[in-house]
Amino acid sequence: MSPRGYWYAAGHYSASEHGGTHIDAPIHFSRGGLTVDQIPLAKLIAPTVVIDISEACNKNRDYRLSVDDLTTWEKQHGQIPGGSLVLARTGWGKYWPDKGHYLGSDVPGDINVLHFPGFSLEAARFLVTRRKIIGVGIDTASMDYGPSRLFEVHGIILGAGLYGLENIAHLDSLPPTAATIVALPMKIKGGSGAPTRIIAVLP
Amino acid sequence: MSPRGYWYAAGHYSASEHGGTHIDAPIHFSRGGLTVDQIPLAKLIAPTVVIDISEACNKNRDYRLSVDDLTTWEKQHGQIPGGSLVLARTGWGKYWPDKGHYLGSDVPGDINVLHFPGFSLEAARFLVTRRKIIGVGIDTASMDYGPSRLFEVHGIILGAGLYGLENIAHLDSLPPTAATIVALPMKIKGGSGAPTRIIAVLP
Repeated sequence: MSPRGYWYAAGHYSASEHGGTHIDAPIHFSRGGLTVDQIPLAKLIAPTVVIDISEACNKNRDYRLSVDDLTTWEKQHGQIPGGSLVLARTGWGKYWPDKGHYLGSDVPGDINVLHFPGFSLEAARFLVTRRKIIGVGIDTASMDYGPSRLFEVHGIILGAGLYGLENIAHLDSLPPTAATIVALPMKIKGGSGAPTRIIAVLP
Repeated sequence: MSPRGYWYAAGHYSASEHGGTHIDAPIHFSRGGLTVDQIPLAKLIAPTVVIDISEACNKNRDYRLSVDDLTTWEKQHGQIPGGSLVLARTGWGKYWPDKGHYLGSDVPGDINVLHFPGFSLEAARFLVTRRKIIGVGIDTASMDYGPSRLFEVHGIILGAGLYGLENIAHLDSLPPTAATIVALPMKIKGGSGAPTRIIAVLP
C-alpha cells in the first residue's frame, strides 16, 4: 500500500537487448546499419514464408537450412515473394524452457559449446541476393547455428540491411504461406536489437 | 570490432515499467490484478473509440474527460460498443518532447506540481459500469489528470480489470471510430506495466 492509502505496484526492468524473443537490427553486425528504432513499421508487418526443416534438425541438432531446402519449398509453393519474412521452423521451440536442450550446451552453462540449428551461409546469401526478402526469423537462439564462431549469417543478413527475429515461440503453429507477421520491438533509441512481441494474422 | 574481426554492437536497456508509451496492467493499482504478461492477446487487439476533447483541453490544461463528453460522442456515433478501447484525445502529443509543457510542471523537474488533462472519475465509473469496454488510453502521461494525488481513475479502471495505455503518440491521426488498435507490450513476467508499441489498422 502507498502512504496515501491506495494499492500501488511498479517496477523497473533491465536486460540484454538480445534475450528472449527479440529482433536483431542491422547495426548489431553491420557498422552504420539501422538501429532498432529506425526499422520502418512497414517492414515489421510482413507476409511470411515458413520453411519446415524440423525433420532434418531432429536427426542433426547442428543442421543448417540449405539452398536445397529453399528450392524444395519453392517447388511446392512457388518462388518466395518479394517483401517476405522467411522463417526457419526447426521445431526447437518445444525444448524451451529446458535451456540445456534448447541451447545444446554439452557442458551446462558453458555457452562456448552450443548445438542448435540455424541458417547456412549459402541459404543466407541466396535469400539476400536472389530473393527480395525483408528479414529472417527462427525458433532457436540465433540465425547462425550453435557451433558458429564468426556468426557469418548475421553478417550476411544484417549486412544487407535486413533484420532477424530469434527465439520465436509457437512457430510450429504457422502454415507454410499466408500468415502475416506483426513484429513490434520495444523502441530502444539507438538499440542494436530489442525484445519483440510477435503475432501472426491468418486469413 | 570484435576480437574475431567482425563488427558487433549489443547493449543492455533498463527503465521504469511506466515510462514512454506504455501499458498499465491491472495489478499496477489493483492487488491481485493481472500482470502485464497475463493480459490476453485478444484484449490487445481492439476496435477503438476516440473521444476528442482537445478544444476543452486547450482552454484548461487540467480538463478531465466528462460523462457529458461520452454521451455527446454517443449522440453522434452511437453507443460505445462492447469490447472497445476508449481513447481520450487531448492533443497533448503535440507538446512532446517539451517535457515542461507536456507534463505541465510549473517548476521544471518538480513532478509534485503537474498540469495535463485526464479522465474524470465519473467518466471512468460510467465506462466501467455502463459500457463493456476493455481498456482506456490517452495522449498524456496518465489517465488521471496532472493535479491528481490519489490516482482514483487508475483505481477504477485497473480495479475493474481493464488496462490503460499512456503517452500514446499520434492520437490526432485517428478517426472517431473504425480504427483497430494493436498494442503489444514487452512481455515482462509479473510486470505491473511495460513499454508498448501501438499501431492502428484502418479499414
